[in-house]
Amino acid sequence: MSLSWYDNPAASLDQKTLAAARERQSQLTKPPGSLGRLEEIGITLAAMQATQHPRIDKVWISVFAGDHGVTAEGVSAFPQAVTAEMVRNFSAGGAAISVLAGEWNARLEVVNVGTVAELEELLGVMDARVGPGTANFVSQPAMTDEQLQEALNAGRAAAERCAINGAQLFIGGEMGIGNTTSAAAVGCCLLALPADRLAGPGTGLDAVGVNHKAQVIERALAHHRQDGSLQDRPLAALRCLGGFEIAALTGAYVRCGQLGVPVLVDGFITTVAALVAVRLRPELAAWLWYAHCSAEPGHRGLLEALAARPLLDLGMRLGEASGAAVAMPILRAAAALHARMATFAEAGVSQG
Amino acid sequence: MSLSWYDNPAASLDQKTLAAARERQSQLTKPPGSLGRLEEIGITLAAMQATQHPRIDKVWISVFAGDHGVTAEGVSAFPQAVTAEMVRNFSAGGAAISVLAGEWNARLEVVNVGTVAELEELLGVMDARVGPGTANFVSQPAMTDEQLQEALNAGRAAAERCAINGAQLFIGGEMGIGNTTSAAAVGCCLLALPADRLAGPGTGLDAVGVNHKAQVIERALAHHRQDGSLQDRPLAALRCLGGFEIAALTGAYVRCGQLGVPVLVDGFITTVAALVAVRLRPELAAWLWYAHCSAEPGHRGLLEALAARPLLDLGMRLGEASGAAVAMPILRAAAALHARMATFAEAGVSQG
Repeated sequence: MSLSWYDNPAASLDQKTLAAARERQSQLTKPPGSLGRLEEIGITLAAMQATQHPRIDKVWISVFAGDHGVTAEGVSAFPQAVTAEMVRNFSAGGAAISVLAGEWNARLEVVNVGTVAELEELLGVMDARVGPGTANFVSQPAMTDEQLQEALNAGRAAAERCAINGAQLFIGGEMGIGNTTSAAAVGCCLLALPADRLAGPGTGLDAVGVNHKAQVIERALAHHRQDGSLQDRPLAALRCLGGFEIAALTGAYVRCGQLGVPVLVDGFITTVAALVAVRLRPELAAWLWYAHCSAEPGHRGLLEALAARPLLDLGMRLGEASGAAVAMPILRAAAALHARMATFAEAGVSQG
Repeated sequence: MSLSWYDNPAASLDQKTLAAARERQSQLTKPPGSLGRLEEIGITLAAMQATQHPRIDKVWISVFAGDHGVTAEGVSAFPQAVTAEMVRNFSAGGAAISVLAGEWNARLEVVNVGTVAELEELLGVMDARVGPGTANFVSQPAMTDEQLQEALNAGRAAAERCAINGAQLFIGGEMGIGNTTSAAAVGCCLLALPADRLAGPGTGLDAVGVNHKAQVIERALAHHRQDGSLQDRPLAALRCLGGFEIAALTGAYVRCGQLGVPVLVDGFITTVAALVAVRLRPELAAWLWYAHCSAEPGHRGLLEALAARPLLDLGMRLGEASGAAVAMPILRAAAALHARMATFAEAGVSQG
């Protein structure tokens, strides 16, 4: 088998800057450790950017949108048409992520990797449709291998646009009616969990709906297990059960690691994409922060499986990168504190 | 007894705007509830500002600095000189809060309510010294009644500067070597807790130091109890055991409530000031958010006593308003989302 671009490893942190950053934090005018997690974030950002003056000024947000064949099973509280409608809403500036990107002056792009219907030309929306939604994965693979590669490549391209534009942080988001079902299926597959551990209300299912969703996922897992376990084959699991936007996120995260661009992972679906990416490239984990713990019940287990400590826990469950956009200022603050606080010596402050 | 300014009640939220804000949130293009706590924050900010377009653009930060006689008991890991040295560091822009205020473009003022020595003129620092530090409260009241009134008034004046400058959020901070001892003493007094429940490492005491600090607080509590319980007399507790900066924060919070300016409470010491303020004026609670849960161990219990749900839990314990400054963008985001997201009807998005 020939090597693909995603077989290349993630970049390594600059160990010399890392050591100097630890030393610098111990000299800043505050009791040691008193900035809590912001100290470690500042140190890591310094090493990632190979400077004692890290910055998170330029933030890149790519929201990937795609449809899901599994919606035919009645797994979502919202109709499939909403995927495309929300793409228009992103473009028009009315969605949560549009508002947040504007508020933080972040660059927002939307990448259509597979709405059911082709969309008209829309400001800020790239047409990169891999297909008219995925196939219903209950009894067939969600996508072909060509489609998987194309979706991964769409993510890679987004990461490269982020890097080439000089952004210091990549945030990925997703929109796709049915995608909590797909993400839960991929997560259950890779973590060998029963469906009811990761199936949740998504956009708003009731208990009966959640139960049905879990059964749909169980049927899909049983079907795809016939060809052998997918637990240790992250890309096969992604191809059989994933979505175009989830695959694009996986590709984007892997490429960010290769390019040395730190990533702020958003919520439930993006964490599944991160799980696939980290299974592919374990050293990528050093480049990922996790923004928040979603109200989607399965998210906590996913985060634990990744040994991830989210920054926020505010009961959010919208997706679109909205949780990451709310958490982003914490990274910005950590970078600023590391870069610009005075040392005890500079300020003439006595040490304890 | 004549009425004082702080006997006037806090403003009431605009109930009509509140109801309209709830209705608006249900119409925004997202599954109901999917923005988690940001929805309630947005709704409350709308009611506080009496508009469906709330904003948190102009943020006011007042950091109050004062010294503490109780440092004579050896309760701090840092020497008393650091209070004044840090005031200079705030002025020079090298402290954590200086960096964060700059990053968010917030207005930062420092109010010297009582360093031991008079300070030279410093940019951005107001001289409002109530005295050369408090008295050692182990065997005497920390301050006279005149000093208490003067410190409360210093906080009131800061809240009024905030309001007159059109700021939409007040953040109070504190600097004062020894002030976790003072805050713990006031908190134990009002909540009838033993000293070891609220005495913690502060700027960095070891276990022996924390134990000594708790014993100092117990001695003080026993001494002041001789004149009758202070548990239901918040201002008397503040006078006997508090600090000038804690009293100023109490005054500032009370005045913010009267003026209808929302407040983001910072950490351990500011929460004790908020406790005193809410004991004085219970309806003030509607105007207070709590930024974070401090790593200072007693903070969690204080927050529970106030039924407060902090926004962040990042292991911070610096004070200076730094935790509030890190949490502030969450309020800003909630306001922007409430004000600027499109409704389903506006965006032509189908509802579930």
